[in-house]
Amino acid sequence: MEAFTFYNPTRISFGVGKIKDLGMELNKAGIKRILLIAGGGSIKQNGAYKQVLDSLGKGGIEFREVWGVQANPTLAKAQEIVSIAKENQTEALLAVGGGSVIDTAKAVAAGVYAADTWNLFTGTEKIEKALPLYTVLTLSATGSEMNGNAVITNSETRQKWGIGSELLYPRLSIIDPALQGSLPFKQTANGAIDAMAHILEYYFADDKAISTLAINDALLRTIVEMADRLKTNPSDLLARGNLAWSATLALNGISGVGLKGGDWACHLIEHAFSALHPNIAHGEGLGVIIPAWIEYMSEKEPARFLRWAKNVWGEENVSRGVHRFRDKLEAWGMATSLRDLGIKEKDLPEILSLIMTTPRIGAVSKFTASEIESLLMLAY
Amino acid sequence: MEAFTFYNPTRISFGVGKIKDLGMELNKAGIKRILLIAGGGSIKQNGAYKQVLDSLGKGGIEFREVWGVQANPTLAKAQEIVSIAKENQTEALLAVGGGSVIDTAKAVAAGVYAADTWNLFTGTEKIEKALPLYTVLTLSATGSEMNGNAVITNSETRQKWGIGSELLYPRLSIIDPALQGSLPFKQTANGAIDAMAHILEYYFADDKAISTLAINDALLRTIVEMADRLKTNPSDLLARGNLAWSATLALNGISGVGLKGGDWACHLIEHAFSALHPNIAHGEGLGVIIPAWIEYMSEKEPARFLRWAKNVWGEENVSRGVHRFRDKLEAWGMATSLRDLGIKEKDLPEILSLIMTTPRIGAVSKFTASEIESLLMLAY
Repeated sequence: MEAFTFYNPTRISFGVGKIKDLGMELNKAGIKRILLIAGGGSIKQNGAYKQVLDSLGKGGIEFREVWGVQANPTLAKAQEIVSIAKENQTEALLAVGGGSVIDTAKAVAAGVYAADTWNLFTGTEKIEKALPLYTVLTLSATGSEMNGNAVITNSETRQKWGIGSELLYPRLSIIDPALQGSLPFKQTANGAIDAMAHILEYYFADDKAISTLAINDALLRTIVEMADRLKTNPSDLLARGNLAWSATLALNGISGVGLKGGDWACHLIEHAFSALHPNIAHGEGLGVIIPAWIEYMSEKEPARFLRWAKNVWGEENVSRGVHRFRDKLEAWGMATSLRDLGIKEKDLPEILSLIMTTPRIGAVSKFTASEIESLLMLAY
Repeated sequence: MEAFTFYNPTRISFGVGKIKDLGMELNKAGIKRILLIAGGGSIKQNGAYKQVLDSLGKGGIEFREVWGVQANPTLAKAQEIVSIAKENQTEALLAVGGGSVIDTAKAVAAGVYAADTWNLFTGTEKIEKALPLYTVLTLSATGSEMNGNAVITNSETRQKWGIGSELLYPRLSIIDPALQGSLPFKQTANGAIDAMAHILEYYFADDKAISTLAINDALLRTIVEMADRLKTNPSDLLARGNLAWSATLALNGISGVGLKGGDWACHLIEHAFSALHPNIAHGEGLGVIIPAWIEYMSEKEPARFLRWAKNVWGEENVSRGVHRFRDKLEAWGMATSLRDLGIKEKDLPEILSLIMTTPRIGAVSKFTASEIESLLMLAY
């Protein structure tokens, strides 16, 4: 197994009703004034908002609210919130929502100490300090609740880029599966695909991490099984909980142990789709590109992909595995081609040139522009 | 899935030669004077000691050494080290060794702030503060390198009891699989059984933690597979590494997520064996009691144990699974009965009365004295 470092100091509080402890946790940490960051209002429907307000009240925590973080969250929004956080001398941030809200909060947490938030993404400035971050997760997908990474879109340059720092691990993340009980299946499936994608970005990087790969097989099978259960019964709380925890493990470091940091070509490619078409859900975009990537790569190196076909899908060859993967996505009502995503053939050159602004695409195989073109055609 | 809290702030540095960074890590943390705690001298043979000295030198770290921690480590030794740590105004502890050395270091870390170290075990005093702890692991087994627990034997009262605190998580644990390359297979197998035992203590507690159980299946299979490989080739570094990481995961919280804290009857029972016969290795003792416990329990509740037989051993019923487990232990040259361990039938009443000094034995099923007697006879 390759050398690795594992470090993840986020505390997870998992279970129905766990928000009730939030206010006292903040209080115990000596925090008095926070900024609550949220999305478009779904947390008023799912009950999270009311529970958060009650809990903050019990802990005697002063707070201000900022709403309006959208899917594929933008730099502009993060910058707006940075100003508010500075004005209010915010002591900590509380993200209540899914990955977009949490990622925005991370950009803000570091951004308040930067000359310009985008500098942290380009690497012009380093993250030296960050506000403490607390989260209440309402959509299991990105794993952002238990890692130090964030991805933000700069709408002007159309770059969807990331930051990562040990300073950005949430201090505490609350995962209450009941908050996800009313999600439409489409969103659940997006989350499930995103979680699978995180595991798969690591999965093919090295066959020597035997223990990690065995865990990853287990997680991939569990995610498919739980999503299937939720398609039949969206209020299956047991499936919600196990899907939620699997999604957290998919990107909290455990699934990547000994796997050389993973590949991440598919994520870079998908980021170009959703930077150009912000209405494309990240999970659905990944569901289109990953099977195409496996197909493309396995022609060169079939042995590397056989384990996945066998252990996750019970198939004896890779193309059968890819077939089963796409069938599953279709059964979940998800796109299986760029066409399904609403991308037109004439968009491909622009997507390609956007992808090529990234210094390096892929680790398992480093892609050239013409290879990405072939890959996009395969996904089209 | 049951509600749970997950928190594990230990940093793991895994890989061949990783000790070289230790001195600078201590230095960066502002630590200048440490106490190095070690066992009987095996770290001089496996190369760990020399690498540690070099690294401490590079970091400019002053240190004193205490040697002589033994398997089934004693309170008396911990108390001796507490005095030395106090005299030397030690700023941090460095445990170089296996679980016994690390557990002793944890008892010392908390013990220097206690009126009496044993009070922390009986609960008379609470752990309010502890010295920072760093570890270099030389035997993968107990998982102590990545948790906040320690078990110590009070030779006077013959109680082998434990403590647990968030303050006792090591700050940094270095796992270099090459240090374990010269271990006799017997010790490797003891470690493998100990790691399996930790997973199995959680495994049967609840069937609703679907994601955790899938991971636990994966870990149990991996541990058996890696131990088999190491029996054939002790210097198989890849198997060493994957066994090492599996053993860490077996007791760092991951394997217990949503499993209600586990059962731990077998550990309590085994602690009585080794408290009376300190020459019995913890892993080997567990290998005797666990299959007997599964046999005993599965007569009452077969369904609970069937998953294990199927997913770990590929068997269709529990007794075949138990059979396969015992066959494996035998193939590894390990004891499969109390008799094999050198325990005599006349010792059983004393063992029983020692076990019964624990307030509660088991969570899946709470054992009475007569049930433990039956269980011991089954294991005899």
